[in-house]
Amino acid sequence: MDPISRFSAACRRQPVDRPPVWIMRQAGRYMASYRALRGRASFLDICKQPALSCEATMMAVDQLGVDAAILFSDILVPLEAMGLTVEFPEGGPEIGPAVRTADHVERLRVAGAADALGYVYDAVALIRKTLDERAGADGPLPLLGFAGAPWTLATYAIEGGTNKGGGKNKHALRRLIYDAPDVLHALLEKLTVVVADYLVRQVEAGAHAVQVFDTWAGLLAPDEWRALSLPYTTRVLEAVCARTGVPTIHYALESAHLLDAFRALPCDVLSVDHRESLSSVRARTGGRFALQGNVEPGVMTASLPAIERAVAACLADYGDAPGHIMNLGHGITPDASVDAARHFVVTAQRLGAERRR
Amino acid sequence: MDPISRFSAACRRQPVDRPPVWIMRQAGRYMASYRALRGRASFLDICKQPALSCEATMMAVDQLGVDAAILFSDILVPLEAMGLTVEFPEGGPEIGPAVRTADHVERLRVAGAADALGYVYDAVALIRKTLDERAGADGPLPLLGFAGAPWTLATYAIEGGTNKGGGKNKHALRRLIYDAPDVLHALLEKLTVVVADYLVRQVEAGAHAVQVFDTWAGLLAPDEWRALSLPYTTRVLEAVCARTGVPTIHYALESAHLLDAFRALPCDVLSVDHRESLSSVRARTGGRFALQGNVEPGVMTASLPAIERAVAACLADYGDAPGHIMNLGHGITPDASVDAARHFVVTAQRLGAERRR
Repeated sequence: MDPISRFSAACRRQPVDRPPVWIMRQAGRYMASYRALRGRASFLDICKQPALSCEATMMAVDQLGVDAAILFSDILVPLEAMGLTVEFPEGGPEIGPAVRTADHVERLRVAGAADALGYVYDAVALIRKTLDERAGADGPLPLLGFAGAPWTLATYAIEGGTNKGGGKNKHALRRLIYDAPDVLHALLEKLTVVVADYLVRQVEAGAHAVQVFDTWAGLLAPDEWRALSLPYTTRVLEAVCARTGVPTIHYALESAHLLDAFRALPCDVLSVDHRESLSSVRARTGGRFALQGNVEPGVMTASLPAIERAVAACLADYGDAPGHIMNLGHGITPDASVDAARHFVVTAQRLGAERRR
Repeated sequence: MDPISRFSAACRRQPVDRPPVWIMRQAGRYMASYRALRGRASFLDICKQPALSCEATMMAVDQLGVDAAILFSDILVPLEAMGLTVEFPEGGPEIGPAVRTADHVERLRVAGAADALGYVYDAVALIRKTLDERAGADGPLPLLGFAGAPWTLATYAIEGGTNKGGGKNKHALRRLIYDAPDVLHALLEKLTVVVADYLVRQVEAGAHAVQVFDTWAGLLAPDEWRALSLPYTTRVLEAVCARTGVPTIHYALESAHLLDAFRALPCDVLSVDHRESLSSVRARTGGRFALQGNVEPGVMTASLPAIERAVAACLADYGDAPGHIMNLGHGITPDASVDAARHFVVTAQRLGAERRR
């Protein structure tokens, strides 16, 4: 199978020759080549200069042999396009000014915000062109675009300067939930319009599929998530589906308590972390999604045999039904090794193919 | 009902006049009186000097009107008694030397470790005496002892100096899970012996019930938790039950994925966080436990009406069956206010009594 067909088929729960494999945050600080790039350019510079974004994206393709490329960018760049400042000091992002009142929300730009992210679409087009040029005998790799879910972007915007360290409490956010839900919903409304346009534009520029990161979904109890995240993410996913037709992946972590609620998501793929087995997730979500994941990322700091055991266990747990995209449960960390990541990919490809024979 | 009978009955799922209420970390930095105490003594000094531990414990009793007192101490003091250094710099505890090899485990002291914690039993006895002296018309409050679960103490001991900040990854721990499980089990074995003795001694000194904090349970997938935590915590709980007969409370957070596995715990009460509703937890655990919790702690930084809504929602969700101990889902945070905490307690007592009429 050619890589684009394999990835699309896995998303649609159609038969494949083997599950495709990629790694969340596959271009990152664990790579010497990425650290060298960061010596020349800031994180935001890499996001904003298409040539650098393409260079970072291709590192993972070239060094790991993954089955999909993902745009190198950050979920927070739309907040900048809406009029906030976004910085990435050590320890976590800082967004200014924190969005905590109706006035703050009022000031956020919606019209033109997606247009202001032209550097992202340029990066997507350049990466797509590069993937086509460097295609192997089987054909070019698929390219994934991505964005943060409105709820998760709202979390960052509201916490502002307190995302790092103590930001784990997210009490600025909690105060809005308890005492000013209208402000929160007004913010979510604006984010939804921008994120939907932003993802559609990524697909128009060349992305074959998109992943929506609802990183902070797990903060919420099910009824809270149904009120504060589901309606907005649903509109984003439906816009992508209606206006582009590409497969959509929904990512969350530490969200086993939300699995029943996730059944209502109009996406093709759920990306889940290691805390619940894929077979259990499939049972709890009624088998209506393809599943992405869910090897525990710490294994990337363990021995190569341990990685092999983890990959084999994940494939065995999912079983032979169609609809599995092999990945970690969340992003690879800076203390991982490139050898480990490569072994993960090669092992997933080898064992995945063996299971299909 | 007198407070000790009310608390015990709630733990045993017997009828009560109203659910008892207390607050995890109810004596803490959110209180001016506690900050003043910390101006005079370090955190470890307060843990180690029975008069200071008693003073901190009684702050919550006096200022909040809670229905139970809890020993002021820290789950990490047994690690010190086993031969490690334990410090509490800003940002998280530091344990030295980190326990990562068979040799490190070998060096840990078991015999005499529980004896070396005499200052804790002295504190328990002093607090108990003070509670008796200051009893209201209904009688004295119950006193809770506590300890960390072996798994959670192992996590801290293995991470050592990396518990703070990046310690969220817990990769030192993960490396043992993947490549040296024997070392991990040897450590868990030693911790189990010490923790069981330590809790029994707290009860012998006067505690009416004990809570076992498996704070890091949620890191693990269900099969991992069944292998690495359940057998050891089970031995601790069984020792307390067999040797003292007092009620036992098991605490975990971010552990909705473990609810099926929790059914095997030989405890009386499960303390759960806000991520799953109490009615859902009860259904998933087959109704075999009393439940403690589970109001989201951020509400303590919101308005008083918001606190009232949260308390009412929690009581309504649990319903009128016996076996509810009202509490937060996890510890109250330094940005909470004493007024909020007091309002939480008073409201829980008032609404809880109204529901029973």
